[in-house]
Parts: sequence; structure tokens; C-alpha cells
Amino acid sequence: MNLQEISTYVDTHKKAHFENLKKMLLQPSVSPQNIGIRECAEMLAKFYEELRCETEIFETEGNPVVYGKYDAGALKTLLAYFMYDTQPYDEPGWTHPPMEATLAPLELPSGRVTALFNRGATNTKGPMMTFLNAIESIQKTEGELPFNLVLVGEGEEELGSAHLPEFVKAKRSELEKADACLFPFFLQDTKGKVELYLGVKGIIYFELESSGEKWGRGPTQFGIHGSNKAWVDSPAWRLVDALSTLTEDGGNTVLVDHFYDDVAPPSPEDEELIRSLVKTFDSEPFKQTVKVDKFVVDEKDRETLLKKLLYTSTLNIDGIWGGYTGEGSKTLLPHKATAKIDIRLVPNQERDKMLPLVRKHLDEKGYKDVEIRILDVGYNWSKVSVKEPVVQAMIETCRHFGYEPEVWPHLAGSAPFYLFSEVLKIPYVMGALGHGARAHSPDEYIVYEGNTKVMGLDGAQKSMVAFMDEWIKR
Amino acid sequence: MNLQEISTYVDTHKKAHFENLKKMLLQPSVSPQNIGIRECAEMLAKFYEELRCETEIFETEGNPVVYGKYDAGALKTLLAYFMYDTQPYDEPGWTHPPMEATLAPLELPSGRVTALFNRGATNTKGPMMTFLNAIESIQKTEGELPFNLVLVGEGEEELGSAHLPEFVKAKRSELEKADACLFPFFLQDTKGKVELYLGVKGIIYFELESSGEKWGRGPTQFGIHGSNKAWVDSPAWRLVDALSTLTEDGGNTVLVDHFYDDVAPPSPEDEELIRSLVKTFDSEPFKQTVKVDKFVVDEKDRETLLKKLLYTSTLNIDGIWGGYTGEGSKTLLPHKATAKIDIRLVPNQERDKMLPLVRKHLDEKGYKDVEIRILDVGYNWSKVSVKEPVVQAMIETCRHFGYEPEVWPHLAGSAPFYLFSEVLKIPYVMGALGHGARAHSPDEYIVYEGNTKVMGLDGAQKSMVAFMDEWIKR
Repeated sequence: MNLQEISTYVDTHKKAHFENLKKMLLQPSVSPQNIGIRECAEMLAKFYEELRCETEIFETEGNPVVYGKYDAGALKTLLAYFMYDTQPYDEPGWTHPPMEATLAPLELPSGRVTALFNRGATNTKGPMMTFLNAIESIQKTEGELPFNLVLVGEGEEELGSAHLPEFVKAKRSELEKADACLFPFFLQDTKGKVELYLGVKGIIYFELESSGEKWGRGPTQFGIHGSNKAWVDSPAWRLVDALSTLTEDGGNTVLVDHFYDDVAPPSPEDEELIRSLVKTFDSEPFKQTVKVDKFVVDEKDRETLLKKLLYTSTLNIDGIWGGYTGEGSKTLLPHKATAKIDIRLVPNQERDKMLPLVRKHLDEKGYKDVEIRILDVGYNWSKVSVKEPVVQAMIETCRHFGYEPEVWPHLAGSAPFYLFSEVLKIPYVMGALGHGARAHSPDEYIVYEGNTKVMGLDGAQKSMVAFMDEWIKR
Repeated sequence: MNLQEISTYVDTHKKAHFENLKKMLLQPSVSPQNIGIRECAEMLAKFYEELRCETEIFETEGNPVVYGKYDAGALKTLLAYFMYDTQPYDEPGWTHPPMEATLAPLELPSGRVTALFNRGATNTKGPMMTFLNAIESIQKTEGELPFNLVLVGEGEEELGSAHLPEFVKAKRSELEKADACLFPFFLQDTKGKVELYLGVKGIIYFELESSGEKWGRGPTQFGIHGSNKAWVDSPAWRLVDALSTLTEDGGNTVLVDHFYDDVAPPSPEDEELIRSLVKTFDSEPFKQTVKVDKFVVDEKDRETLLKKLLYTSTLNIDGIWGGYTGEGSKTLLPHKATAKIDIRLVPNQERDKMLPLVRKHLDEKGYKDVEIRILDVGYNWSKVSVKEPVVQAMIETCRHFGYEPEVWPHLAGSAPFYLFSEVLKIPYVMGALGHGARAHSPDEYIVYEGNTKVMGLDGAQKSMVAFMDEWIKR
């Protein structure tokens, strides 16, 4: 590819590419609350069509997968996976409106940038549109793509990708022809350092509920006057009791029998990556961005801290509620109380083994009535070797732009990458350059105009083009 | 008083009296959410003025007390205490609209009645307006009241009457001239049985909050991506842990040191009342009304059950919340979690001793950062002797109408009656006939048209008149 020419195209089409992104950001697509999903899928399909892709809105029992194919008659096929759904944006704490694609200055440790604030900006409409813009830039400049393209845009990643396996099963013969998978993502931190993650943890998401109805004790149908606590049992206290049996040490140690049984020590390849990672890893950008002062272990011991993050299987309370939660005081004996919980899985834990362990624990502790309600069946963890050509292409691309990437064994977060690595047997990589942060938090942003360290959206797009160029050579 | 003539007046003015009540019910006055308080106070003041009372909207730091005086030049003075504020009505579960004063048939174990559904109907706008209508009926029929009247209508009982002491202090010299206090209330249960309560438990209402900001660990300013649980602490788990140290046995046993130290065994007078109570007490109406199947102790042992209800000091979770509580799944490591808690006080516990014990407990267990935020400073318990003339007058009135009242040592609920019994040294009684239920719950109601067992509003009004007639003779 003529990278110079493509680069010029990117520079001269900055405004149009920004308009594409803005259009996508302003379209709500909140899968947890089922807002705007269909409209967003249709918008994404239109973008595919503009890239001359054979496009299909693949219907599932849940949200549709926006599927696209472009046969360039090339030797290699790249599968790009991204999600068009986002988290809700109704939480307090936004200083910029969550759905107005506001451009505003932002001071990063690497200097001032212009950031683009919006729900979904970094997770992951920003990287997704940057990738589609990159494809357009190649097509317009080169006339033809030098590789075939398969686009998988899913609409329920934030719901645990419940129906993506259904799609993968239906399209398996087409999908498995791909040589590699790219998950468009901005790899730079606030200082400009590149972090490349070779995998993800698995996840299961469920609700635990204690109710008078199931228990047969306490109020069974509605909350009653609080004075009745003297002679009527409390499903709210029961939830607290049941939860407190699950962990100790502030939730840092899970007490469920066999919970950690399958947790494997880091592989030799991981140990090697960590030895290198320890030298460059800096916790400050993370702490600053999300306003965290302390970790569960002493952060001076970087190796321990990193291993804690990457190899700890967690049982996290995402939310908890019951009874009267409004202003002021209302005395109430609630009839139920509920907690949302996610379990993160690390190698070699198996997704389908975990909930039965939690169920057994609750039963044995006497909480047979405390209900487990699965919200996301979730996914297994997934890892890819640093030796894969697609990974090496990404590393080489970063170096080409002057960045030595910090290669992480995997991410602490989750994504359904096991469908690529385990089901389709395709290696994958996340990338390329650029920076965004505060996924799932207020003031989610990506960098629009960068500084000397952090790439803006134009640089991000160019780095994606360069990655594709690097990859087809391998 | 000419009870026959007053009774005729009540019958012929049923519609006008209902309109008075309806007007009051339709006026929101939700003190926990500060909705309609001022408007309701002004409406109540107008009703006082129609009764020719010298009326004052007494301003406090909180909601005003609607104060009224009527000097009939009589020997005895009756103080009536009631509240014009209500609980919120935004909880789910209402089958009748909460603010439309709907009249609808209701099947009670004693037979069909016509019920009036509205927030505040039984707690306590229904009894309050029935009392004011009764005063009007006496005035219009007798020409003059045979006693002086002092009216104390407070507007923050549901907030723990925080500023009533301020009012009592300011008006003490006038208030303490009263010979007795009546708290208008409907004493009948669903079967028509009369329950007379000779006092109340005390209460304290507060929030317990665990936050990253106070703790110095965990997310400090907003919830962050749930995958960070692996290396960042959880204020939500910390709240669960802290709560779980406070009680055991599903919240039925409080583990705070010295919590129960001042709990006294039932007095000899109480023991005598309980011996009698055990013979007539029936838990079925309660269970049916609030949909409770089981008690914390075996209900066949009535004495134990009753003592459990009346002499147990509780630490109840009224509400709990933190993190993501919306639809579906959002992985979040919350930066704080909060519980609303009420402590109920029984003789001889002292209100001001309790929170320091909870604070000390939390400190000693290592939860110095878990904040106690007082919402209601609350009140002490209060009791009045069955031998008081005002109590005997109520008992005699019930008998006059053909009901042998079931006399309870006190109510499990709370009210600021200590201001009368302890501060002003005035005996009090609750009454008279009539039935209402589901205070603080959906479908709160009172009986409008009664059946052969349960009095309707006309009977309730007549019984209040009869009580006043009986009382002035003593």
C-alpha cells in the first residue's frame, strides 16, 4: 500500500471522517436498557454498504449482528470484530453531556489534548469508526483493498454477547476462512505508552436475590412497616448474610469451595511478558484517570500488583438494592433485596463450572432460597500467543510510529474473544494507536487532537492502515 | 353532651365530612420527599379556623406545626396530636391509584366493606379529619365545646418529628395545661376487634455508608469498570462486611456490645395486660393484610410471640443500595454503598445511648471509615398506665359500642409520645373505633362504609364524640 498517499487522504478527509464518527456516537445504542439498538444497527449497515460490503443485518434472539463481507479476490482475509452497543449513560458525574459528542480540552500527563466526550467513545464506537474510516481511506486511495474483509459488528457485548455464538455457528464456514481477527481499540494510555493485551478474562454476570416469597419468611409480596422487624424476618438482612459468606477480606478472597481450583499460574510465555512489563509498567495514569489512590496490594511490588490484576478471579458486587432507597427516612421491612454480581475468569477456569459452585455454596450455607438469576451466560477467557503474525504485525506497526509497546499477557476486562481463539481458531489482536478512557464511567472520552505523545484520531487511523499493510506482508 | 343529637348530625353531614377528608387526602404532603407540605399545612390551618380555633402556623427549622387553640372556658382541656405528613407513594404495588381517594369494595374477614384507598388514609389523615369532623359535629350541635381544645398538627412525623421538641419547648406553658392528649387513630383490626396501645417504641433512623472517599481505598469519586475488582478494593463489599458484623441470625440478634443492656423485662402491669392479651390475640388479620406467612418465633406460643414483638429492640435494614441497579448487566466497581437503618427502642433503652454503641462497634471491628449519617434523631419510647382516666374513658367508650378492647402494653411502632408523657407529663390515649391498614405499604386504606363488625367513618366519628363525652365526666 502507498502509505504516504493514504496518509494524505486521511489528512484531507478529517472532517468527513469525524462526521461519520459523530453520527455514530450521537445514535444511542444502550443494550442494557434496549435503547436505539435497531437504529444503530441500521446505521452501521449503511456504513458497511458505503464500503461496498455485502451487508446483512443478522437477526438473533437478541440484538442483531451487523455482518459484512468484502471479497477483494486477495490471498488473505481479515476479520474485524467490534461492538456497536454501549453502556447506559444515566449515571451521575458527567461534566460533559454524555450524548453530545463534545470536543473539549483535556489535560493529560503527556500534555493538553482535545478530547471527544461521549458514551461509547472509547468502548468502542470511536475505534470502530476509525477502523471503518481507515478502510475507506485505503479503498479510495488504492482503488481496491489488498485483503478480503469480514466485518462482525455485534450489538450486545455489554450484555455478555449472549447471541454471538449463535451467529458464529450460523456463519462458521465463512468466518473460519479469515486468517486473523482485529479488534479495533486504542492502545495508548494518558502518557502515550502503548499497551497491547494478548487476551481477556472470561465473565459471568448474575443477580443474587433474597425474597420473602422464595424464602417463605419475611414479607412475601411487598415491603411492610419497619416496626415489624421485631417479629418478622428480613430478606434484606438475609441477602447481607448470604453475601458475607461468599467472600472475606472486603471481597478480596472468595470463600466458595473450589472457586480457585482451576486457576493456573502464569505460563512461561506470560512470565516472560511480565518480566518485561514490570520494567515499564506505570500505575499512575490509571490511578489518575479513575481516581483510585490505593491498590489491594502494595503497588511498589509491581510484579505482585500485575499478577494480582491479571491472574485473580473475582466475585464483584456491581450493584445492590432493596427496600426504600429514596430521600429521607421511610421505615420499611423490605420483601426482597438483590445484588448484581460478576465473576471474572482467568486461565484455566471454565465458565460453566462456576455458577454451580456458587449455588452449592449457598445451598450448603443454608441459603437454598437465595436465587441465582443469570443475566449473561458470559464467556470464557481467551489468550493469543505473542508469536502470532497478527500480533507481531501490531507490535511492528507501533515501533514504526516510534512506540515500543508494552505487551500484556491479557486484559483484566472481558470480551468474547474465545469465539475467535477457541471456536474459530483464528488468532487476533487489539489495536492500534490512539487513547481513550473511562469506559463504563462518566466522562468517557477519546482523544480527538493528540499531542506529541498521544495520537489523535488521524494518527489512530493511519496506524490502523499501517497495521494492515504490515500484516498482509507476513 | 347530647350524643343522640350529635349522632344525627354526623349522619346528615356524612357527605360534607367526606369532602373534608377527601380534600385533605388529595393534597400531597410527603415529608421524606418534601412534596406539598406547605400547602397541606395551610389547608389544615383553614380547617382549624372553620372550628373557630385561634390558629398559628408555627414555623420550625423543618416543617411547620399547625397549632390551634379553642378556649371554651371549660374546666378540662384536651390536647389532640396528629400529623399531616405522609410517607411517599411512589413504590410499586398499588392496585388503586395512591392519590385519588378511590372508594372500592374490600373483602375483610369480617365481611365486605367499602374502603377508601389513598396514601395517608390511615397514617393518619383519616383519623385526623374524623376527629376534626367530630369537633365540628359537637360544636354545631351543642353550640359550644364542653372542653377546651389544643390542636397540634405536625408535619414531619415521618421524618422522626425532628422539630416537634422545638415547638413543645416554645409552647410548653400552654401545652402543659392540657389534662390529657388524644391521638386520633382507628383501633379496629380487619375482624373488628379493638386494639388499644398504651404507648410506643422509640426510634432512631440513620444511614450507614461505605465510600472509597472516606476509606481511602477503592474508587474514590465514581464507579469504575468492574474488572478492576482484581486490584482495587470494593466499598460495596465493605458495606456488606460491616453490616454483617452488626447482627446474626438474619438480623434477628444484634451483636453490638451493650445494645440490649437497658432492655427491661415487662413491668407487672404489662405482664398482667399480656396475660389478658394472650387470650384474645389473633395474628391472622395481620398476616393476611401484609402477606406474611411466618414469624421469627413459633406463633402458637402467643405469649412468646407477643413479647417478641413488644420487647425486642431491633436494628432493621430499611433500604440498601449502591452501584448499578438498573436493567440488565453493567459491570461496575461502585465507589460507595449505603444502607438505611432504623433502631427501635424498648423500655428502658435510651435514645441517645444507642448510636455511640454502633459507632464504637464499627470502630472496634475496623470500620472507622464507615459513616453513620443520622437522618432522624428520633424519639424515646413512651408508655402510659392503663389506670389513667383518659385510657379508662377510651376503654369504656369501646364497651359502650359493644367492643371489649384488647389492651396492648404498647405498639411496636413509634411516635413522639414521649413529648407528652415525659416532657409535658400529660397522659394520652389513641382512639377511637374504625379500621385502616397498610401504613407505609401500597394500597393503604381506611374503611369508609363498615360492616357489622368494623366501623365505617360515621361510626368512627361517633365513637370519638362518645370518648370525649366519657372523658370529661372523669
